[in-house]
Amino acid sequence: MLLNSLNYIGVAVFAASGALVGVRKDLDLWGIVTVAALTGVGGGILRDVLLGSTPPAAVQNWVPVTITSVVALVVFFFHPAFTALRRTILILDAIGMGLFAATGASIAVAVHSSAFAAAVVGLLTAVGGGLLRDVLVREIPLLLQPSDLYAVPALIGSTIVAVGSTYTDIAEPVWLIVGAVSATGLRLAGLAAGWKLPPAPRRTRSA
Amino acid sequence: MLLNSLNYIGVAVFAASGALVGVRKDLDLWGIVTVAALTGVGGGILRDVLLGSTPPAAVQNWVPVTITSVVALVVFFFHPAFTALRRTILILDAIGMGLFAATGASIAVAVHSSAFAAAVVGLLTAVGGGLLRDVLVREIPLLLQPSDLYAVPALIGSTIVAVGSTYTDIAEPVWLIVGAVSATGLRLAGLAAGWKLPPAPRRTRSA
Amino acid sequence: MLLNSLNYIGVAVFAASGALVGVRKDLDLWGIVTVAALTGVGGGILRDVLLGSTPPAAVQNWVPVTITSVVALVVFFFHPAFTALRRTILILDAIGMGLFAATGASIAVAVHSSAFAAAVVGLLTAVGGGLLRDVLVREIPLLLQPSDLYAVPALIGSTIVAVGSTYTDIAEPVWLIVGAVSATGLRLAGLAAGWKLPPAPRRTRSA
Repeated sequence: MLLNSLNYIGVAVFAASGALVGVRKDLDLWGIVTVAALTGVGGGILRDVLLGSTPPAAVQNWVPVTITSVVALVVFFFHPAFTALRRTILILDAIGMGLFAATGASIAVAVHSSAFAAAVVGLLTAVGGGLLRDVLVREIPLLLQPSDLYAVPALIGSTIVAVGSTYTDIAEPVWLIVGAVSATGLRLAGLAAGWKLPPAPRRTRSA
Repeated sequence: MLLNSLNYIGVAVFAASGALVGVRKDLDLWGIVTVAALTGVGGGILRDVLLGSTPPAAVQNWVPVTITSVVALVVFFFHPAFTALRRTILILDAIGMGLFAATGASIAVAVHSSAFAAAVVGLLTAVGGGLLRDVLVREIPLLLQPSDLYAVPALIGSTIVAVGSTYTDIAEPVWLIVGAVSATGLRLAGLAAGWKLPPAPRRTRSA
Repeated sequence: MLLNSLNYIGVAVFAASGALVGVRKDLDLWGIVTVAALTGVGGGILRDVLLGSTPPAAVQNWVPVTITSVVALVVFFFHPAFTALRRTILILDAIGMGLFAATGASIAVAVHSSAFAAAVVGLLTAVGGGLLRDVLVREIPLLLQPSDLYAVPALIGSTIVAVGSTYTDIAEPVWLIVGAVSATGLRLAGLAAGWKLPPAPRRTRSA
């Protein structure tokens, strides 16, 4: 119940980010609906394929795609309001990332993955949708750009859920919330403080 | 039998479109064979991975890759004839799209997917190969461009097969043919009439 | 044992190539670690998903990602030494390709794939990581460029292992070594001799 609700909120938030990228790239209505769907459910489909849970939940169940389609339509008609709220989007995106890192790890633990595998699957769930979005519209994925911290908070969040659920007796929902809040909090703190990882040393780089 | 024949015709037609894109991008013989193979069987591999039917038919069985390789060789040596016939290619591509939408949905129903899942899988089978082709040669996927209707006819075709096979007693082959003809017909009608979906309203867009 | 060792050497070599590409693209530390990981284990994950062995070994087991992370850190801090040694990298990369073609085919045979399927899976294991690397950093994949022979030696190596292990009584390790050495040797010979496949005939190409 909690797991499902958190997951659907993440789907909606990521769909909004995908739809906005589609608007910026001048895609038509179908393109925007498609990018929103793939961004919103791409991470979850990757998670289910890696865990062997086929067909993936987002293919078997009509709810996630309905959510991403409604979100895409809202963005399509009202996007001027959204682009003016870019700051809000960054915050919502951080929330979605935290939710997917935590729920991805939790679902992996539920199908008896090792803690290591659950942490990796949580990370891939959190970054998979955005990666697919950026590859489709032909940008170097945000994930790889020398930008603000993104995947490190996701990995920390998924690791908390994976290790906590596997090695302690504390109830799953507690770890779910601690993991999601940690990932989102670190991401937002990093954005606010301008934390960055270093690029490779350049001294003798040529061509 | 009918299902297999329709599927192989779709593989051949999509392989031809992939090979022609490879020629235009100045790829060498192996590159052209590779793009033709991935375009021809990419949608089917995606379908089988999503349905958990591993190894995918196109990996397990030598027929599909043999078809794509022969098609690629023919295009490689005779492509001037093909590029002069770009109109013919668009028509063949529409036929392939309709065939994959219908066969993809039908195969999903055969492994007991829900009607919703079958419609989604049919759509992804129809568009998966072309998407892979465009990502590989670094173009914004045709699927996402503000161009003529492509995925909407595919979705209509796959939905007809999925809903018809699941909820009626009419024989599968009937739905297979109705679905494929509907998808291909709508695509061709859209090309002829210049139907397009609207881009997002631009009023206050900035940057 | 032999299979595992060969596989891990391949992971390390491919991770180094991915990390160097990340350095050249000015990615930050996390981006370099990510590209190294996806290049190193991408082919193996694709192999396991196609074979239905989920979760993939590289997700379930901490060794491969640890290898790619250590390699990425070494490249990050010492890359000027590596870029000066580009020739060495090409040789190491050829070794990795040969190892993955052979081990991929061998693992497919072990789960009872047909010889044809094993050859295809070996090829995809050998080229999958590099393909993912190039798509992520937005280059036309090396695999498709009119460049030196790359995938043909991989296919020859994987076919030797697949056919040999399936149809003869000679011990698997023999085929593993013959396949890997053949693929790597052909690739290096092709590099040394400048072997290339022909581009498509251009006579009447327009636009």
